[in-house]
Amino acid sequence: MTKVNFTEKLSEFSDLWSPKVIAEMNDYQFKLVKIEGEFVWHNHTDTDEAFIVLQGSMFIEMESETVHLNEGEMYVVPKGVDHKPYSLEECKVMLVEPRGVVNTGNVTNDLTSSNDVWI
Amino acid sequence: MTKVNFTEKLSEFSDLWSPKVIAEMNDYQFKLVKIEGEFVWHNHTDTDEAFIVLQGSMFIEMESETVHLNEGEMYVVPKGVDHKPYSLEECKVMLVEPRGVVNTGNVTNDLTSSNDVWI
Repeated sequence: MTKVNFTEKLSEFSDLWSPKVIAEMNDYQFKLVKIEGEFVWHNHTDTDEAFIVLQGSMFIEMESETVHLNEGEMYVVPKGVDHKPYSLEECKVMLVEPRGVVNTGNVTNDLTSSNDVWI
Repeated sequence: MTKVNFTEKLSEFSDLWSPKVIAEMNDYQFKLVKIEGEFVWHNHTDTDEAFIVLQGSMFIEMESETVHLNEGEMYVVPKGVDHKPYSLEECKVMLVEPRGVVNTGNVTNDLTSSNDVWI
């Protein structure tokens, strides 16, 4: 592989809630996603999911608490835990999760994006 | 878990080449490490290893090439590939790799650090 520059990769897309794969490590993937507004409540039955904020600010609402993440902060949503990501303004996030994870998890709706899209 | 702030965690240690675990995702770990100078040539027989530069600049020397990473850049060293990380000045790095990976891989020397140390 060649090295990955987050700023360069982020400049290559503008669609929201549509994760793009930038690197793989074993059977895990690093994905960049731009978010704004509210996502759908969902969970991932089989895996934890790591959120790392690269720029901006976002929230992860869960039943038990809402986590507020700023740039340079991360949180791992445990597998099976219902969560709803949202942000008030555009936020740039890196996700780390196993290859094959669909963004809306156990839910399929118009926010469900194509999986394994590389940039 | 609670959210992790990289700057806060980085302020909690100063030893070099000694990765500290800050989060787990399934059987993978996120680790922070401060590096300066040259590490030892080594490889990880069973796993890829992801390097994400949070602050500063570092190099990963391999037989085929040397990758230069700056802040906001990442690289995944493939499993089994000999590599020697180094930096000219202190560099702050996040590693992502399976739980149990030892920093010096197939080599044991005075740079081999305790594994699974959380901060």
